[in-house]
Order: sequence, then C-alpha cells, then structure tokens
Amino acid sequence: MTIKTDAVIVGAGPVGLFQAFQLGLQDIRCHIVDALPYVGGQCVELYGDKPIYDIPGIPLCTGRQLVEQLQQQIKPFAPTLHLNQEVVSVERLPSCELDIRTSAQHHFVCKTLFIAAGVGAFQARKLTVEGAQAFEGTQLHYRLGELAHYANQDVWVIGGEETAVSAALQLVQQTQHTPRSVTLMHRRDVFQAAPELEKAMRDAVAQGTLKLQIGQLTALHGSATNTANVSVNAAATSSAASSEARLQTISIATATGETIERPAQQLIACLGLSPKLGPITQWGLAMERKQLMVNTETYATDVPGIFAVGDINTYPGKKKLILCGFHEATLAAFGAAAIVHPTRKTLLQYTTTSTELHRLLGIA
Amino acid sequence: MTIKTDAVIVGAGPVGLFQAFQLGLQDIRCHIVDALPYVGGQCVELYGDKPIYDIPGIPLCTGRQLVEQLQQQIKPFAPTLHLNQEVVSVERLPSCELDIRTSAQHHFVCKTLFIAAGVGAFQARKLTVEGAQAFEGTQLHYRLGELAHYANQDVWVIGGEETAVSAALQLVQQTQHTPRSVTLMHRRDVFQAAPELEKAMRDAVAQGTLKLQIGQLTALHGSATNTANVSVNAAATSSAASSEARLQTISIATATGETIERPAQQLIACLGLSPKLGPITQWGLAMERKQLMVNTETYATDVPGIFAVGDINTYPGKKKLILCGFHEATLAAFGAAAIVHPTRKTLLQYTTTSTELHRLLGIA
Repeated sequence: MTIKTDAVIVGAGPVGLFQAFQLGLQDIRCHIVDALPYVGGQCVELYGDKPIYDIPGIPLCTGRQLVEQLQQQIKPFAPTLHLNQEVVSVERLPSCELDIRTSAQHHFVCKTLFIAAGVGAFQARKLTVEGAQAFEGTQLHYRLGELAHYANQDVWVIGGEETAVSAALQLVQQTQHTPRSVTLMHRRDVFQAAPELEKAMRDAVAQGTLKLQIGQLTALHGSATNTANVSVNAAATSSAASSEARLQTISIATATGETIERPAQQLIACLGLSPKLGPITQWGLAMERKQLMVNTETYATDVPGIFAVGDINTYPGKKKLILCGFHEATLAAFGAAAIVHPTRKTLLQYTTTSTELHRLLGIA
Repeated sequence: MTIKTDAVIVGAGPVGLFQAFQLGLQDIRCHIVDALPYVGGQCVELYGDKPIYDIPGIPLCTGRQLVEQLQQQIKPFAPTLHLNQEVVSVERLPSCELDIRTSAQHHFVCKTLFIAAGVGAFQARKLTVEGAQAFEGTQLHYRLGELAHYANQDVWVIGGEETAVSAALQLVQQTQHTPRSVTLMHRRDVFQAAPELEKAMRDAVAQGTLKLQIGQLTALHGSATNTANVSVNAAATSSAASSEARLQTISIATATGETIERPAQQLIACLGLSPKLGPITQWGLAMERKQLMVNTETYATDVPGIFAVGDINTYPGKKKLILCGFHEATLAAFGAAAIVHPTRKTLLQYTTTSTELHRLLGIA
C-alpha cells in the first residue's frame, strides 16, 4: 500500500520526535520510520538510564525521561510510527514528489523527507570470531528470543552490559525450558548493570544455578551432523546451518592467559548496538565524513525537499548535541512549510499567544 | 571597582541564563547584567504566568517556570547578577580586552561579551498625556514604591494588568498610610489578573474601599504652588516639579463618551513594559533592522569577542524562538572558549559521560 503524506522522518530519536512537533506547528502531518523496535534512538539505547544535564530548562533527566516527555509533547500531532525497518530507497518521481521504500515494504510518496538518523541505524554488534556467521540464527543469537530454543543445551551468554546479565538471569530463573547449563562470560569481572540486577546475578552464581566465566571467546568448534538433527534444533528462519557443521564447543582465553575448551551448543552475544549509516550513503546526497551537508538557513541538504537534522548533519560550527538538533528541526520545519504550503505565508507565531497554533495543538 | 572576568552577559532572560550554563561547561566564569530588577526578561515580563508549549522536552510550562528551571540548571556555575542597570558603554582596551560600564557604575574588563538582550532593555511604558513628564517622580509614578508616599491623597492607579490590580489592592489593604481615596482606572472593564486577585479587587469595589473607573485619562490639571509644599510631597530624586505646577485633578473620557474631572494628587501608571534597544545601537556593531548580524558558526558579531544570541541577533533563517537562542548560546560558548582558553583543545564532551564536565557541574 502506498501512503501519501506531506513528510517522512527517518529516525525516532529525540530530534526526529521534535521534528514531528515542529512540523505539526506548521500544519504538516508526518510518518516516522526507525530501525529499532522502539522510539528514542541513541538517547534510549546509550543513555536510557543515564543522566543528561544540558537540555535547556531540564537540569537533570535520563535519556528515557527526555524521550517520554517528547512523546507527550508530540501527541497532538499523532505522527504514525513505522518501527523495526529501515528506509532502503529514496527516489524522485516525475511529479517532483519523493518515493520512499522501507525494508518492511512500506511505500511512501511525500513532499519532504527529514533525515534525523543520528549516527545511523543501530544494529547488534557482531561476534568477530572466525566462522561465527555460519551459526547465526541457529546456534548464535544477538538477542534472547524464545526460551524454548535453549532447553537442555549448554548456553553461553556473552557480554558485560545489562542486556547480557538480564538474558542470563532469564534463562536460569525460568523452569519451563531449563537449559543443561547457563554461563555468563565477559572479558573482565565488571558488569554495567543496575545494582539489583547485578546482585541477582551474583546470587545465582553463588547458588550454582549460573556459571560465570571471565575470558574471551577465541574459537568455535563444530562437528559435522546430519541435516535432520540440525533442523530439530535450529530456528526455522535460517538456512545457513542446514547440512553444515554443528557447534559443540568453544575455546576461551581466560584472564590468567590459559586457553580452555568448554561445551556450548547455544551462544547469545549481547555486545551492544553499533550504528550503521546503511543505505543513506547510497541516496546521492552531499556528504562529508559520513555526515550530510546542510545549509544553516533551513537545514536542507543539496537535494530539494530533503532535510537533515541532528547528529547526522554537518555545517560550519556543528556540535553533536541534542539541543542543537532541536533548533535545526525547527528551522527545517519552516523550510518544509515553504514546500508543503507554498501559497501560505509562514509567519512566526508563538505557542503562548497564537490561536492558530492552539488549534493545531488541540488546546481549547 | 573594576571587575576582571572572562565573560559578561547582557540580559538575564532565558537565553542569557543558558549562556551562563554553556560558558560554565567551557570552564568560563561570567557576570550577567540586566536592566530589570529580576531575572527572566521578556519571558517573565510577558509570559510569566502564560503557557509555553514549544520548549523541547517540556510539553507545558509558564515563562516563570522555565526561568526557575534555568536558574536551577546554572547554579553550579553561580554567575554574578548585576540587576537594575544597563550597559552604557563598551570599549576596546589596548590589551584587546573589552571595557564595559553600566548605569550603576559597575566596570568590567573582560575577554568576551554576550549580548542576549532580547528586544532590548524593558522600560515602563510612559503616559502619553500632555504635561505628564513634569510630574514624574513626584505625583506620577511607574511603580508603586513606598506606600507612605500616598497617605491622605487621592490616588489613581491606571492600567488593566496584574501589576495595576495588585498596586490598587496594596493601597487599600494597608492601614498605616491610608490614602484619602484609591481609584483603579482602565479603559475597559476587563482585567488581565489572576482570578483570585481580580476577585479581591471586585470585593474591594463592592465594599467601597476601592473605586473603579472605566475610562481614559485625557488631561492633567495642576495649580501653581510654592516650592516648600511640593518638596514635602515629592520623591527626593526628582527636581522636575520644584516650583512647578502641582497636579490637582484629571480629566477622564468615560466609556459612554462623557468627559469628567476628578481630584487626583497621585497617579501610578502600570501600563506594562516596553523594550528599548538603548545604548546597544551606539556600540558600532553591524545591525540590520535593529538586529545584530552574526555568523551561524559561533554567533559572533563582526566585532571580535562580542557575540549576540537570542532575539537580538539576525542571520539567514533566523526565528525569534527561545529554543533557537539555546542553540545559539551553545555555539557561542564554543566560540568564546577559543578566545578565553586559546591553548586548550575544545573537544565536544557530553554531560552524561565526561568526568571533566561532571567536575565543572559539581557532580561527585
């Protein structure tokens, strides 16, 4: 289905969300696309529970709180969210409109595009050990997924962040699909997790339900197996492992310099997310060191109708700060108004006094 | 006394306050000068109790709330406030530093100057009726001042805003220096005041302690008097009325079109504040329609060391919005860091993660 709309925003981080607000004030409705399954982008991904001190008028907030406040602020304009997908192509139609397609087969035809993609789409950081890719989706996973998948197997959770600790605890605390063993492995005995979560993890280790291994994965060892067996254990979506080797053990370099080998049929790597600019680099926009060049009058790129705001853009003096993105989104919305409502005079109005803005904000 | 400092900010509105925060993050201490007796500028003066919807991350706040939040945010940097005074001269010293003097005889020598003066210094809007100036400071006032001044006289408070209603109530509610009569006059029977304040005013009118006159002042009538008498009644600061006529009655055009004359020895005109750019126009900076021209890289004016942020500046795309001023102040602080700390490398750091910024913010 083709969605016709005034504006599409790529990126649901704080700047993308505020872009929707400023477009709303210009009477421009929009759709937002984000690669993550939730809104907030980097701000939730990297600063979810961490303090931010430099949002003007907010002496202290966490990334998550900021995003929640922004979600409340944009409610009057109810932008439609399209999560868990990336924009894969942008083309100019003969009508001069933009034709935008996402990895989830959404298709937009719109007048303006706002790239608020931060440092790019966030993707799980991959295991770099040789041969890892062959097990992806069957015996190597980048998120916990279905617990049933791990029953009666030797499971290794790799990583030192909260998602790793939380995944290991979920595996040992459930009783329905008990793994044969669960080991949490990190290169050093320091974890970035909420104190209560770390305590639960330490308690599980003390009780022997969870094993803790300090060390680094150095090799994967498989054994040839017949296709039927693999299919039973594998996630149905992947075809990589059919008739290939099956992971049986892993080699670990321990903190003391030894190399040990341990049974392992399932690996869950929680190594954090890493940004990828992805297909944006193929859209033909002027770039400088992976940044999109914009003018500081409307934060437009060199392609008519395409604006770039927040950490993804660059111009003389650019600082990658959230508050700068808010300003950029505001001026970009004025730039878009000239395209979307070419015959209207876009006067500067104030939310305090303008009855027109009150109408748009839904204030009686 | 001469104060040597890194930076002086002219204007204690939201942008001036946030400028102090961003300078603090750059390890630059500052002094703030403002013409009003309190911080907040326009934001408190015009929007004190009114809703603002477009501060990013704050779905709704009043001007006063925003200013309170900003004051809390800048606390770690404790800028020194110099209120109730205007900057009257800015000169370049042979050392290349700036020499700044205020109307209260403060003298600063500094490396950088930030003009965050909004639409200019706010001054009481003056009565335009003929001959008014002659009574200023003796029988005509633009703020309530000492109550003793009004004892045993016919006092008229002119205006429809909260300050007028509040001044009239203060006069009738005190018992120490009772005026002969107190009349609140406004051109129409609609007042911009908090509901409880308006109710108190209506109650006082119903009880007869306060008179209400709907109409407009059209003339002042004085009578010659001897100097001694005038001196007794006059505020010591003014010399205008010595040996001049003394105000006895006023003419009023009522809502029904009549002209009436009433006894009046004291007038308090609360007509709101009106901005005046004042001496800034004489500093030799490049201007365009009363705005200071800046570049969008550091928001510097064409004079080295002088930056302009917020409503007072202009550049292609400029919108007079508070959130834009926040961005401008941020980039200006980076511009100042290059001047104040020329040998330090000014890296972009984040308040969430930088131990250096945590030290500056006073976070353990």
